Amino acid sequence: MSADEFEIIARYFAPLAKSPAARGLRDDVALVDGAGGLVLTTDALVEGVHFFPDDPMDLVAKKALRVNFSDLAAKGAKPVGFLLVLIWPDHRPASEIADFAKGLEQDAAFYDAPLLGGDTTSTAGPLTIAVTALGAPLGARTPARADAQPGDDVWVTGDIGDAWLGLLARRGQLEMEADAIATAVQRYRLPEPPLAFARIIAEHANASMDVSDGLLADARKLAEASKCAIDINAAPLSDVARAWLGASGDRLLELISGGDDYEILFTAAADRRDAIEAGGRETGVRVTRVGSTSEGEGLRLRDSSGRLIELPPRAGFRHTLGR
Amino acid sequence: MSADEFEIIARYFAPLAKSPAARGLRDDVALVDGAGGLVLTTDALVEGVHFFPDDPMDLVAKKALRVNFSDLAAKGAKPVGFLLVLIWPDHRPASEIADFAKGLEQDAAFYDAPLLGGDTTSTAGPLTIAVTALGAPLGARTPARADAQPGDDVWVTGDIGDAWLGLLARRGQLEMEADAIATAVQRYRLPEPPLAFARIIAEHANASMDVSDGLLADARKLAEASKCAIDINAAPLSDVARAWLGASGDRLLELISGGDDYEILFTAAADRRDAIEAGGRETGVRVTRVGSTSEGEGLRLRDSSGRLIELPPRAGFRHTLGR
Repeated sequence: MSADEFEIIARYFAPLAKSPAARGLRDDVALVDGAGGLVLTTDALVEGVHFFPDDPMDLVAKKALRVNFSDLAAKGAKPVGFLLVLIWPDHRPASEIADFAKGLEQDAAFYDAPLLGGDTTSTAGPLTIAVTALGAPLGARTPARADAQPGDDVWVTGDIGDAWLGLLARRGQLEMEADAIATAVQRYRLPEPPLAFARIIAEHANASMDVSDGLLADARKLAEASKCAIDINAAPLSDVARAWLGASGDRLLELISGGDDYEILFTAAADRRDAIEAGGRETGVRVTRVGSTSEGEGLRLRDSSGRLIELPPRAGFRHTLGR
Repeated sequence: MSADEFEIIARYFAPLAKSPAARGLRDDVALVDGAGGLVLTTDALVEGVHFFPDDPMDLVAKKALRVNFSDLAAKGAKPVGFLLVLIWPDHRPASEIADFAKGLEQDAAFYDAPLLGGDTTSTAGPLTIAVTALGAPLGARTPARADAQPGDDVWVTGDIGDAWLGLLARRGQLEMEADAIATAVQRYRLPEPPLAFARIIAEHANASMDVSDGLLADARKLAEASKCAIDINAAPLSDVARAWLGASGDRLLELISGGDDYEILFTAAADRRDAIEAGGRETGVRVTRVGSTSEGEGLRLRDSSGRLIELPPRAGFRHTLGR
């Protein structure tokens, strides 16, 4: 998209989202009334933008599901099914459709979220997959991006940055050991959103969203939606990411701006700390307190000694494979 | 898609649709439990397949909505909102996004079905729009393709064939008066699914589906799903279509195989005839009894004198602009 995606949504499409269910398009899901309510989200993957033409088709199928299930988990909801739009290039062989369907079947079974319907069509363009995922809320409320309170802790699940290193590797720009490269590429190709943690989110989170566009960009969105300031003073990194950063840590900003993490960024009142940490242990999900919210606006990043790190005006991720 | 779309769905994806909500992917909608239930459908439009690159963007937006709302109407449901995936080519100017959003806004208001959420991304390929529409059932049941009973009447709303003539016109293959061409092109670009008739469907239909792939192909699908035979002995045609056919009627098969009609094909018990005709008058929707179902299988087409017209083995529409 030539203009900025967020501007386009705000300018052209947000005025159409008059239903409270749409949350002004400033959230990642729509809420539909019904028995217990239904949480809906839709996200598309486009070949050459979100995955490489030669990525294995079973993993592309799984990624298409998981980027949507990630949105549900971040809203404290459990996937219950999905709709699939599959726009298949004429030149790709039928064996790749079989691989795609196999991946889809494995993840639908793994997440207990069956295919409910869809549409298939051909294209002379890139392979394009749009999934609409349906979720059942696990708690009484569905945390929005806008629900942070001043004085909240800010938390992140899992590790940040590995998927971006995987993207670098796929571009031939990651100089590391072969097994580190393999780990990073796997994280890029196959996100593992922490679905088990969704019930902890439902119980304890104030604001919540998934990290898809990079920790910095998404923290900034959460701060803007919640009309508060966010201070980040830590970021959970894997061994691979630490090795890549090295002693200087010069490239930390790149690492935490990369995107494609599909972890959960959330805020919660300070009196929930013990419960959240216990929830992490129960569900086997690493959860790290990375900062706090306060009255005001904007995002501030500090290093381990408390010094402010200067941020670019819009530290954000634009999905493209070739930048 | 290189192989046949229906075979691909049956072979690769139907096995994944284990939920009763999916109706085995042999229907046009998914049913979700909830207060009163929710009917879901998703359909995509791809530039160069479902519309021409130079079609007006406001009409493309409306068509993307209407092909989905058509599925809802055919299931006796009323649109209540939609999700949008918009995959926008880098080279199209922002003014076209504004046109697209304008068309979307007009139809969302017209149908009282707001935008609930979505995803936008860029592409080097064709403009692609995937809509997921949510519907509220207007009756106690949601008629499936599979619900025809032997001895049912077969009905069609509106006129068949005009949209296909519009496609011919856009290809420069329709030799008619300018106003006839304009009418046909309008029907192709902007379907008018009979949403007002949805409550009559909900009340009286046994089986029901929308006509998107051509009357013959869709009647065959309905017969197969319902495990019955269908005899068609009439087709409602507009003045433009009658003029194009001329006295010989030689090209009737082409006309009723063309597709893109977005009318409703349904069956109902014979004792519903008066109520259905009254429903047509009340809602301002033309409704025509075109045939009947019986024990057995297959589709038979008869001319006005009752003679069988030989059908190709798979009279069907494959969406492509350039055949």
